[in-house]
Amino acid sequence: MSSSGYRLAVVGATGAVGVEILRVLERRAFPVSSLRLLASERSAGKQLDFNNKPLTVEALNDKAFESIDIAFFSAGATRSRQFIPAAQAAGAVVIDNSSAFRMKPEIPLVVPEVNPQDLAQHAGLIANPNCSAAILCVPLRPLHDAAGLKRVVVSTYQSASGAGAQAMEELKEQVHSFVRGEKPVAKVFPHQIAFNVFSHNTAIAANGYNEEENKMIEETRKMLHLPGLEMLPTCIRVPVLRAHSESVVVETERPLSAAQARELLSRSPGIKVVDDVENNRFPMPLEASGDFDVLVGRIRQDLSRPNTLAFFVAGDQLLKGAAWNAVQIAEELVKRNLLRKS
Amino acid sequence: MSSSGYRLAVVGATGAVGVEILRVLERRAFPVSSLRLLASERSAGKQLDFNNKPLTVEALNDKAFESIDIAFFSAGATRSRQFIPAAQAAGAVVIDNSSAFRMKPEIPLVVPEVNPQDLAQHAGLIANPNCSAAILCVPLRPLHDAAGLKRVVVSTYQSASGAGAQAMEELKEQVHSFVRGEKPVAKVFPHQIAFNVFSHNTAIAANGYNEEENKMIEETRKMLHLPGLEMLPTCIRVPVLRAHSESVVVETERPLSAAQARELLSRSPGIKVVDDVENNRFPMPLEASGDFDVLVGRIRQDLSRPNTLAFFVAGDQLLKGAAWNAVQIAEELVKRNLLRKS
Repeated sequence: MSSSGYRLAVVGATGAVGVEILRVLERRAFPVSSLRLLASERSAGKQLDFNNKPLTVEALNDKAFESIDIAFFSAGATRSRQFIPAAQAAGAVVIDNSSAFRMKPEIPLVVPEVNPQDLAQHAGLIANPNCSAAILCVPLRPLHDAAGLKRVVVSTYQSASGAGAQAMEELKEQVHSFVRGEKPVAKVFPHQIAFNVFSHNTAIAANGYNEEENKMIEETRKMLHLPGLEMLPTCIRVPVLRAHSESVVVETERPLSAAQARELLSRSPGIKVVDDVENNRFPMPLEASGDFDVLVGRIRQDLSRPNTLAFFVAGDQLLKGAAWNAVQIAEELVKRNLLRKS
Repeated sequence: MSSSGYRLAVVGATGAVGVEILRVLERRAFPVSSLRLLASERSAGKQLDFNNKPLTVEALNDKAFESIDIAFFSAGATRSRQFIPAAQAAGAVVIDNSSAFRMKPEIPLVVPEVNPQDLAQHAGLIANPNCSAAILCVPLRPLHDAAGLKRVVVSTYQSASGAGAQAMEELKEQVHSFVRGEKPVAKVFPHQIAFNVFSHNTAIAANGYNEEENKMIEETRKMLHLPGLEMLPTCIRVPVLRAHSESVVVETERPLSAAQARELLSRSPGIKVVDDVENNRFPMPLEASGDFDVLVGRIRQDLSRPNTLAFFVAGDQLLKGAAWNAVQIAEELVKRNLLRKS
């Protein structure tokens, strides 16, 4: 590794998102001078390749963050709460994929296409948003700028990857069981995921919405700086491996035709418009998988209400919903000269 | 077979819906004195069991409807247009599962829980609605009666069965391919259905909505007798075998709390409320499969707009969305003495 780069740490390196962070750093040729892979004791000693060289996973502890410029955290909210203070104290800038700090008013919660300016206020910690909220906000940003967002009704088609590598394995195992003529067993998810859909596997809060839905409501409002945005999400799991889809209806303050929205979205960052009416080709999670961009299509007007548009999006949960957005934040910090001097 | 029953014909007997009609007639112990199975030349000669006795499938032709009291048609719109006039001329009352006659003003389009009174005007032909519209209307009816429906926004999670037996086979085959490490092949659907979701495989009309969505709009309005009902559907296929799910948002004229709606729906015909917050158990297509009822849950209020409720439904596409509704219409015709005298 060259010395002309940043000293990185990836916490949760063996998880679904951690592994993707390594792949994204490679794809982007992010300037890395050193890379420390951290995970639980259980995973310590495992080897992971980075740029075709094996790296050994180390056990996560408070001392692991010395001489680190950027620490990516993707090991769940509990570990983020426990270890991020040490990482910050050691001088690292932390990009946290967990929900632990997202809604703290002083912590920037950032999708680079949506609110990059919020990075300027960081004090060593930037939160990476919930995957469904991140994917949703990419098309919402230009629509808001053009016509003023008033209300968003969204139903999700969320993949297994959002619940981690084990959940993806469970979907595959259940499909194998089906092929063998055996009854699929649910261990990671509360219900069978193969050949089924179910309400998102997070607890329902007192307001009647599950945790995932409440994250979508709160994080979308925070990133768009629209605390009064009307949000009505329904979060549903579907038997897809790694990309989330969302059926979205937006009501705007000012009129915006479907044609105007299509044109606007097609020249907005982080978006590929896939709206091929002739060939019946629209955003699909299979095609979004591996893509950094959010696919947007089925863009059409509400037939019975003015200032209302419907569209369908698909975005890679592990990339734009997690690893790519995290690395993109790191790139933005570099570009804006917002990393600490080492 | 006893002579104290009706003389039935099933057109499209070897199809996904046709086979289910036989099973539903058995489950309901429908009074059958004779049963004629009709299908294309290709399927003629095949044998199907009914009440544990083998019946031979005959080739469909204009002469096949003599001495038939009730003819169930489930062989697509083209065959319905071609053969229903002959069936009616021969004196049969036709229950047509195709879209051929659904929107003709003089033809009743009926879900027995929704608009059974429309059966009285029949002139030998009753249309069975689109599966997604039928499943949706069951909970909409009591909500409308209680609070006045103004607007319905719905995103569907539609199973392979809606595209027929071959589509169900394709989903299974693609899963087998995946397990063998081969690339799944799409023949029936335009895109891979295993591990994917996609916009419904019908053509997009000039208004920007696909055929399935336009059916949902028009048929829901017709069945509820609400020509001005605001409808915004998004129809999406998911890798599920035989039950459709729908994420629904309704705006009503008058207030209705989630608790009131739950209580109302739980005592409405054709509905099972599955709304178990504690165990995270809500309507799922796997559990709706084989059930005559529509499962309804996740009943909650919009947090930011009055008179608006959200809920999630799952209903067996082949049963409430097709075969069961058709047999239920036949039962209703018997009960209301609306069959022709033979």
